[in-house]
Amino acid sequence: MNKQHDTKLKNDLLLRKKAEAFIPGGMWGHMHVKKLPYGYPQFFSKAKGSRIWDLDGNCYIDFMCGYGPNILGYKNADVDHAVNEQREKLDLGNGPSALVVDLAEKITMLVDSADWALFAKNGTDATTTCLTISRAATGKKKILVAKGSYHGSAPWCTPVATGVVEEDTSNLIFFEYNDSASLEVAEKKAGVDLAGIILTAFRHDVRRDQELPKKTFLEKAREICDKKNAVLILDDVRAGFRLNKRGSWVDYGVKPDLTAFSKAIGNGYPLSAVVGVDKLKQAASEIYVTGSFWCNATSMAASLKTLSIIEEIDVVAHIYYLGNNLRNGIHQIANNFGVEIFQSGPPQMPLILFEDDKGFSKGSKFVQYLLSKGIYFHPWHNMFLSLAHTAEDVDMTLDAVEYAMKKISLEF
Amino acid sequence: MNKQHDTKLKNDLLLRKKAEAFIPGGMWGHMHVKKLPYGYPQFFSKAKGSRIWDLDGNCYIDFMCGYGPNILGYKNADVDHAVNEQREKLDLGNGPSALVVDLAEKITMLVDSADWALFAKNGTDATTTCLTISRAATGKKKILVAKGSYHGSAPWCTPVATGVVEEDTSNLIFFEYNDSASLEVAEKKAGVDLAGIILTAFRHDVRRDQELPKKTFLEKAREICDKKNAVLILDDVRAGFRLNKRGSWVDYGVKPDLTAFSKAIGNGYPLSAVVGVDKLKQAASEIYVTGSFWCNATSMAASLKTLSIIEEIDVVAHIYYLGNNLRNGIHQIANNFGVEIFQSGPPQMPLILFEDDKGFSKGSKFVQYLLSKGIYFHPWHNMFLSLAHTAEDVDMTLDAVEYAMKKISLEF
Repeated sequence: MNKQHDTKLKNDLLLRKKAEAFIPGGMWGHMHVKKLPYGYPQFFSKAKGSRIWDLDGNCYIDFMCGYGPNILGYKNADVDHAVNEQREKLDLGNGPSALVVDLAEKITMLVDSADWALFAKNGTDATTTCLTISRAATGKKKILVAKGSYHGSAPWCTPVATGVVEEDTSNLIFFEYNDSASLEVAEKKAGVDLAGIILTAFRHDVRRDQELPKKTFLEKAREICDKKNAVLILDDVRAGFRLNKRGSWVDYGVKPDLTAFSKAIGNGYPLSAVVGVDKLKQAASEIYVTGSFWCNATSMAASLKTLSIIEEIDVVAHIYYLGNNLRNGIHQIANNFGVEIFQSGPPQMPLILFEDDKGFSKGSKFVQYLLSKGIYFHPWHNMFLSLAHTAEDVDMTLDAVEYAMKKISLEF
Repeated sequence: MNKQHDTKLKNDLLLRKKAEAFIPGGMWGHMHVKKLPYGYPQFFSKAKGSRIWDLDGNCYIDFMCGYGPNILGYKNADVDHAVNEQREKLDLGNGPSALVVDLAEKITMLVDSADWALFAKNGTDATTTCLTISRAATGKKKILVAKGSYHGSAPWCTPVATGVVEEDTSNLIFFEYNDSASLEVAEKKAGVDLAGIILTAFRHDVRRDQELPKKTFLEKAREICDKKNAVLILDDVRAGFRLNKRGSWVDYGVKPDLTAFSKAIGNGYPLSAVVGVDKLKQAASEIYVTGSFWCNATSMAASLKTLSIIEEIDVVAHIYYLGNNLRNGIHQIANNFGVEIFQSGPPQMPLILFEDDKGFSKGSKFVQYLLSKGIYFHPWHNMFLSLAHTAEDVDMTLDAVEYAMKKISLEF
């Protein structure tokens, strides 16, 4: 198999060699393929709709959407058009364009828990700003964080502790996601110093089954925040606009005080947002957060168009429907071959893990076989569907799954 | 004067009112006009070359360049063309485009102290990553920071402490920029726990005269880092590519271990970079920093083109020459009217403060008169010149300065 991939990824492997000379480790962060099974391209040359091409011209039906941002598909023409129109006028000036107000208005209309908004670039900017607002508003320090939840890569939240000092995390108290008792223990530890609780929309930690939030758990978090005058923060960076366009907890009836958005908010154009409820507006106006590019008007134009499309077309329903078909099809195929798998999380953000799969050996083989058939799955990070995915894409994917699952059933 | 501005900024003032409903305080961060004298537009509608337009159609010759990024001028056609070409292929995929390697190679060729590079979005991402790499490499915690220097808006460095907790800054030790004795005191405080020293390219703190670095001071910082096995960090976010395209300290003969770039690196397209020397490459490969949009290929295309232009045309010489003419002209005019002013810092990044000007009352009036004549100056933040500025722009600006300075001489 490696041989075959060597041939398929000739340019990619050559460029990786060169990259090592100029980039520490050849690449950084979540897009580094070093932890992925052999056969993943490091670099890409082209993307359109649901398809992505590597440097060697191999085309894949992509189920990662750039790790989330491409909710409408790559190179959405309407979004690009809106960006071009805005760029003809202004991208970055000495202040924002009028779009900043339009976008803040739009997101407050769209998202239930948004009475106001401010914008940044990274998801990490948004989650960090949520912590700062919480502390500004409450005058307290402690933040409750679920073990293993990803909230970004600033020192307080990066999953790799190298270069992080203890003071970066000394005001965090950890608990188990979806475990109300554990949350209450953390609350007690915080005592009178509880500033806030931050939670991802659902449990989408890598390398384990995803879990939708228990309603009672979210209600417990809300109750604690109400009781202790603390701030309930929804980190909707990864899931935002894929579960519910009005905010990922709307169906649970639990209202966060602050929500961090990014990823899908501008279909790949760099933008993040903090939105919040009225009672935190004053505190949000008193902190100082900023960045050289936080006011790029093109990203705001992209976001306005993206959110309009999400409103007008029922994107959530589309990706739920296709994701569900994909899930059912995979379930059927696995069943047929007697392979035990776990499909978890919302169908729009699927994750497939194999039973009894220490070291992800089955999962790795599975995605390698899929790659060889032109399907880009991830072995242990949740995947993403987009509006550009079609029923035909799902059918083609299921054909490849049939092939890969058969191999797995024979090899393990 | 306010009346006149009310008329000039009708749409702007109306939109500010609306903004207050949807954005905390009506705006956030460094682009908020609340601290500026009356008469500054909050919003902009158009920008081209050295000109910027507000919502009411008023056109200004702009000396802020979007607070730095626009080093080639707004809407540089070559940069936009490179962006468009790349976007036709790929912006954000599941990994970077090949441009990430091209750009890392280019910047290591261009910048003296760069053996490798990695890329991010915000200047703050880059400075924070420099701290993390320093701590990872040394296993130590303390960072020496000059009082009043701006390194970004993360909790460890934001100039407004609201929402910041003491642990965010408890590993920083402060000293006075350009004061070697003060640096040595800080070094002693750090003891054996010194991880690094971070310094802006020169002292460009707001609201005070700028200071170029003393060679002996930079040498002292270098010496301390060498002696204590600590990391010398150059925060070249604001000054990068305007003083010397090969790094802002090249002319001082002092080589930083890490350099943070952003702002001008992509002529307004969002990008930042950390570059470093070989001995820190391993540590840089071991930390985990990332962001959803750090691999946008369009920003890398913009940067490649921007850096090529900076290499090919002597942009530094151009903006130095014009900045110097502007400075000399202003000096002459102030002299003629007997107004005492201080022009400080490199001519490419001018700052003009008035003698005996508590509360910036003279400076504020001065920039208001300039605004009324279509010149966008800043009263207390360093300004920026770009390749798009022309000798004619300088002449027109000096005409307006003549008018404004005369007013100042009569009113104070």
